[in-house]
Amino acid sequence: MNPKRCAACKYLRRRCPKDCIFSPYFPPNDPQKFACIHRIYGAGNVSKMLQQLPDQTRAEAAESLCFEAKCRVDDPVYGCVGIIHLLQTQIQQTQNQLAKTQAEIAVAQTNLSQTHNSDFM
Amino acid sequence: MNPKRCAACKYLRRRCPKDCIFSPYFPPNDPQKFACIHRIYGAGNVSKMLQQLPDQTRAEAAESLCFEAKCRVDDPVYGCVGIIHLLQTQIQQTQNQLAKTQAEIAVAQTNLSQTHNSDFM
Repeated sequence: MNPKRCAACKYLRRRCPKDCIFSPYFPPNDPQKFACIHRIYGAGNVSKMLQQLPDQTRAEAAESLCFEAKCRVDDPVYGCVGIIHLLQTQIQQTQNQLAKTQAEIAVAQTNLSQTHNSDFM
Repeated sequence: MNPKRCAACKYLRRRCPKDCIFSPYFPPNDPQKFACIHRIYGAGNVSKMLQQLPDQTRAEAAESLCFEAKCRVDDPVYGCVGIIHLLQTQIQQTQNQLAKTQAEIAVAQTNLSQTHNSDFM
């Protein structure tokens, strides 16, 4: 057994080839990272998705696939779409608070101009 | 050929069984819906994920899987994590705008109280 096998090859119980597609993104010290991705997408699909991308974008793609896979393991019904819904609700709440605060400004400005006008009466 | 085969069985060129796991969520009139999900997860993984869920949550799970798969086809590097980043930026911008507006209120209130105080001098 090669102790330097990447986490993916260790998980798949296979030899880690020199040009392993997983090795740069799944270091041996983080075995859980590949377990999630394998459970949701399957090793073959992940390998295919990474291979179709230019080298310089593969690390980011591996990270985002891991994130989505972890979300799906944590929430099998909504996955990271659940996070999108939460964020949309948060935006709506902040926008409502903003509209309320802007209305308060308009009232304060009206009060201020009425105070000024009454000074001259 | 059974013209009532669901979109998944049509795509997989197989007979659509009576208890087909895909059939309630992939109607024959929307063939693209299954194509995306098959490309990203593979039919076997989707079938496994749906089977592990209680019946009443499977429709929502199928929808969120389709959404994520479509995002990944459209953006192979970031998938729907790209949408999460966009929403987080939007929240940050709205929160900044809210803080600015709240600061404006504080200034307006200070001006108003100064105007009142000068009325009594």
